[in-house]
Amino acid sequence: MLKKFKIACIQNAISATKTQTLALVKDQIKEAATQGSKVCILGECFNSYYVKAQLQYNAEDFEKNGERQTLDLMGEISKQFGIMIIGSIPEKSGDKMYNTAICFNNGQLLATYRKTHLFDIDIPGKITYKESLTFSAGNNYTIVETEYGIFGIGICYDIRFPELAQVMREKGCHFLVYPGSFNLTTGPLHWELLLKARAVDYQCYVAGVSSARYMGTDESIYKAWGHSTFLDPMAKILTTCEHDPAIIISEVDLDYLEQVRQQIPVSQQRRNDIYELVCKK
Amino acid sequence: MLKKFKIACIQNAISATKTQTLALVKDQIKEAATQGSKVCILGECFNSYYVKAQLQYNAEDFEKNGERQTLDLMGEISKQFGIMIIGSIPEKSGDKMYNTAICFNNGQLLATYRKTHLFDIDIPGKITYKESLTFSAGNNYTIVETEYGIFGIGICYDIRFPELAQVMREKGCHFLVYPGSFNLTTGPLHWELLLKARAVDYQCYVAGVSSARYMGTDESIYKAWGHSTFLDPMAKILTTCEHDPAIIISEVDLDYLEQVRQQIPVSQQRRNDIYELVCKK
Repeated sequence: MLKKFKIACIQNAISATKTQTLALVKDQIKEAATQGSKVCILGECFNSYYVKAQLQYNAEDFEKNGERQTLDLMGEISKQFGIMIIGSIPEKSGDKMYNTAICFNNGQLLATYRKTHLFDIDIPGKITYKESLTFSAGNNYTIVETEYGIFGIGICYDIRFPELAQVMREKGCHFLVYPGSFNLTTGPLHWELLLKARAVDYQCYVAGVSSARYMGTDESIYKAWGHSTFLDPMAKILTTCEHDPAIIISEVDLDYLEQVRQQIPVSQQRRNDIYELVCKK
Repeated sequence: MLKKFKIACIQNAISATKTQTLALVKDQIKEAATQGSKVCILGECFNSYYVKAQLQYNAEDFEKNGERQTLDLMGEISKQFGIMIIGSIPEKSGDKMYNTAICFNNGQLLATYRKTHLFDIDIPGKITYKESLTFSAGNNYTIVETEYGIFGIGICYDIRFPELAQVMREKGCHFLVYPGSFNLTTGPLHWELLLKARAVDYQCYVAGVSSARYMGTDESIYKAWGHSTFLDPMAKILTTCEHDPAIIISEVDLDYLEQVRQQIPVSQQRRNDIYELVCKK
């Protein structure tokens, strides 16, 4: 297992067409790889505006050739640069849609993860949103073992559920990766806090990766908070950015992660005689 | 149940003798009550320097008359002002010592809680500490139902274990109260973050209350981070302070807490088909 390497969070601009968006994403991944990144994390539904009609239009059926434009491109770039790529896209499967993370390594699709906690909230006068009108929920967690360590994947609202992170941590994860588009209300309130909370509680490197904010005038298009951020297992922010397109690259060190876990050994100090988190899958 | 009231976090100075310390504490509680506080939260081992010999000397046997100086005083003040008081003191029971929170309301000892996660950590060159050389660990969680709402109590290092907070939240708590003396290494790194993390994940009012920092020259005496802080269920800091003695008073509103829980309904959105936190007590 590689212990020290560079990891990039890629905050990409969304364009009016998937083809245009993917061309921009490709350029950014190329740039990150050129700078030595071995892992590139992309945002939530990074190939589409986050609007129901657009998500439906840009969704891909993973089983059907000819409907895999994003998957095929990510596989190709991942192979070309010998890197790992994680990010979520809208998936269609039968008459259902899922918000699904894909994970490629060196050209191979290693894993997919369908978002399990859908963003249904109602803060009157601020934001009311029912993601379950667009997507169905997945029913499992996903971890991916690679030469770069073990990655657990959550998507956006999933981050509000510490149990999911804890399950992934107990399954051996070194990285908790959250593609996520927080909004302009909960973004400033909770995005950074939730990333830090997962890092400090579960002593993992944590990535929170958003797409860049839509700055046009169409009010129907969701505005993402941006602020992609990468943290170390002491919850220190290593790299961050604001809402414009960005590539932020951090150095990780899995020996440091082990040190942190030995120094503050919470995972061995849990009181499973009082409480216990049970993983049912 | 009272829905709106004032709650005080009392960051008290520790003096060389328990009698002196308690006189200062009494003055601060009186001041907080005079300003209208209905609940006063004190720190961890608020009647003693945090040094093994002192803790042993100042410990009280809750079952023995004549060894209950702190308990008797807290009961008396609680009755005199018609208020609730929570804080931890060293307890001796047979040949064991515990770090035990006491909770009085209107003169009555409603509950005790023995710290369940002892602070045994080792950050070389920064801080190495083995609290288990002084204290035994408790084996249960504690919640207290009062006319001010339901309170869950953790002590200091307990805050690093989200499951304990979650158990208390699921048992109905509105308040998570952490008497706690973080140190000068983990204090600036994690004290505020952990308080915010518990508030945002479990949507409770959260109190973190330390004693004031020892500013003398005796190197054997533990220096507390201080920074007692009170947060609302959106993880917003309502009141805080630095390391000197302080009384910080916040207004709580349990209707607002219910609103927050309805707006971001995470407690109803948990995926207990994938994971489940089981309370074993």
